[in-house]
Amino acid sequence: MPSVSGGFGLDNLPYGAVARPGEPAQLAVRLGDEAVLLGELERRGLLAGVPAGTLSGPVLNPLLALGRDAWEALRGALQERLADGPPAGCAVALSDVEVRLPLAVGDYVDFYSSLEHATNLGRMFRPDGDPLLPNWRHLPVGYHGRASSVVVSGTPVRRPRGQLPPAEPGGAPVFGPSQRLDIELELGFVTGPGNALGTAVPASAAAEHVFGFVLVNDWSARDIQRWEYQPLGPFLSKSFATSVSPWIVPLAALEPFRVPAPPQDPEPLEYLRASGDWALDIALEVELEGTVVSRGNARGLYWTFPQQLAHATINGTNVRPGDLYASGTISGAEPGTAGSLIELTWAGRDPLTLPDGRIRTFLADGDTVTLRGWCGDRDAPAVSFGEVTGTILPAGP
Amino acid sequence: MPSVSGGFGLDNLPYGAVARPGEPAQLAVRLGDEAVLLGELERRGLLAGVPAGTLSGPVLNPLLALGRDAWEALRGALQERLADGPPAGCAVALSDVEVRLPLAVGDYVDFYSSLEHATNLGRMFRPDGDPLLPNWRHLPVGYHGRASSVVVSGTPVRRPRGQLPPAEPGGAPVFGPSQRLDIELELGFVTGPGNALGTAVPASAAAEHVFGFVLVNDWSARDIQRWEYQPLGPFLSKSFATSVSPWIVPLAALEPFRVPAPPQDPEPLEYLRASGDWALDIALEVELEGTVVSRGNARGLYWTFPQQLAHATINGTNVRPGDLYASGTISGAEPGTAGSLIELTWAGRDPLTLPDGRIRTFLADGDTVTLRGWCGDRDAPAVSFGEVTGTILPAGP
Repeated sequence: MPSVSGGFGLDNLPYGAVARPGEPAQLAVRLGDEAVLLGELERRGLLAGVPAGTLSGPVLNPLLALGRDAWEALRGALQERLADGPPAGCAVALSDVEVRLPLAVGDYVDFYSSLEHATNLGRMFRPDGDPLLPNWRHLPVGYHGRASSVVVSGTPVRRPRGQLPPAEPGGAPVFGPSQRLDIELELGFVTGPGNALGTAVPASAAAEHVFGFVLVNDWSARDIQRWEYQPLGPFLSKSFATSVSPWIVPLAALEPFRVPAPPQDPEPLEYLRASGDWALDIALEVELEGTVVSRGNARGLYWTFPQQLAHATINGTNVRPGDLYASGTISGAEPGTAGSLIELTWAGRDPLTLPDGRIRTFLADGDTVTLRGWCGDRDAPAVSFGEVTGTILPAGP
Repeated sequence: MPSVSGGFGLDNLPYGAVARPGEPAQLAVRLGDEAVLLGELERRGLLAGVPAGTLSGPVLNPLLALGRDAWEALRGALQERLADGPPAGCAVALSDVEVRLPLAVGDYVDFYSSLEHATNLGRMFRPDGDPLLPNWRHLPVGYHGRASSVVVSGTPVRRPRGQLPPAEPGGAPVFGPSQRLDIELELGFVTGPGNALGTAVPASAAAEHVFGFVLVNDWSARDIQRWEYQPLGPFLSKSFATSVSPWIVPLAALEPFRVPAPPQDPEPLEYLRASGDWALDIALEVELEGTVVSRGNARGLYWTFPQQLAHATINGTNVRPGDLYASGTISGAEPGTAGSLIELTWAGRDPLTLPDGRIRTFLADGDTVTLRGWCGDRDAPAVSFGEVTGTILPAGP
């Protein structure tokens, strides 16, 4: 399947960081197939709206801390300056540079906000009960993930080793490489200004605190997870790597793609209500070894990002600029729309056959997985997220 | 109960940060009731062993990154320089300054390593089953907590609001301030040099990666936890605040207090084995509103800190300098040795009566909780952790 091309015009202008091999990262916006270097524009006095030095470091956190007024001023200035293309000497071809993680991630939170995903996993793991646990429709279930191992697209992912479930109940665990290495197709938001410890961010104020969005592949070792997760949740089954797309699409670029979220029943508690349309119409796909194995859309998520942020702070927890909040696996109701292999293969029962005859339940060493996202038509997207890709390395010795 | 006094001699020399009110933090070691300012010693050329500037910032992370050889050189230099007391102008009375959090915490992990605590909670919540889940004796169960809300001793703790369990099964949750606000008495370690993503830290190498220890109060809202925690673990029930003691006691100061850990049955997997004695003989106490309500000792923890670190990295997760790993609640087998109110009051069934007649199951607004730790005799400790204290503020509007 070819990459999605287009979708990186002036209406998008996503933020990231690039570097020539071995050199320090420089902040940039992507325009077409070039990275426009923000530090260079700033040095030439071509940007207004942000304090000197904001854009000269390797990460976006200082910009994130400034807040929406500054982001809008900068975006307006960039759209004006770049209307006729980047000034000479201010842009580099993406083929000449590497992308780098443009964030110092403070905390990483992962939600579980797809009704279809939660239902699928409930059916697999609790076949005799209600697939949804009693809390699911009342709050966006979430947990803290690992910030240190958030990596940028292209970073190889080493298969984790660990304790795998005993062959029979009451037996001893087996030590070895995960045999059920999976992906999770997710959308994540990156925060701007935080709140003081002890206060909450109202759902209605989410847009003041959310800078933009990335694609997230929350790599998961299902066998490690099954053995470790009771009673405190996933730990080593998730912490070995979380990959993000390199270009953070600003919320401002997604405004035309805000759509109504699915109806919620029961109506959520007051603190989880936000007027307006807060689902995002973003088409998504999962490619495994060159074959698209799933197609979905983020608009089907049950819990919206304002609800996620309001919930995460209702207890007074402080957000900081550069936190990452991921949606949880995005799965749809139809066949071929699930965002994980455990769902696509129904826990391995229904393997996938690739066009060259190879069969997959979970990931094999050497497999490359690419997630893509865009708004509008795949052939000519209005706004693109590009992709997040990773290749599995064999487990260590 | 009086504070523990003493234990801050040359054999301890714990690291922290202090500031005059409204001023920037300065790194320091504690000697008696004074903070010896490390930046000042460095400026005067009185310290060797660490690169210039390492100690001039507000946090210890640059020192943590240097590793054990540098730490030992610095400790040796300090012990020599301070043998006759601090040079004039290099120390401030603790009564003249505030303590500050001396770390930029990267990731915060919380374990569940006390057999007695896990058994107590299992008995309360699963009265009809085995109190220990099948994985517990095979691995140190843990999860990621919130780094942004790790606060230094003395920081007030606002009672969290959130969704409380429905009155009856199948009912709707109730929104309001937590009614079951609890403490957790824990010991935490702070990391030094990390490992590369995709590699593991062997249990035998833990001492190269662990800088020192603090007391941790992992405040917990039991009602929020009970409703939210399935299937992904604690989230808002813990993320509102985690308090740490201000002075990081170096592992070097604890060497004389390394003792054998409790026997482990079954023998753990190879990667969890470390020769030598790795339990720490640290006496602990919990004071509630001026009354000591629990006395314990960290030496009873089932899983040791080298095992915790080896487990947390066996999947290739990278540690960074300044990560915090807490033990989980430390409870003993005898009455009055549990490290949480839910255990001390058996989920509220057996309230505590304070000397002035006030009754407590969980914490009331205005309550002050102080955890203390020391090695040796309480009256004249060889090494002290000092204390971590916090007072409960009423929930927000």
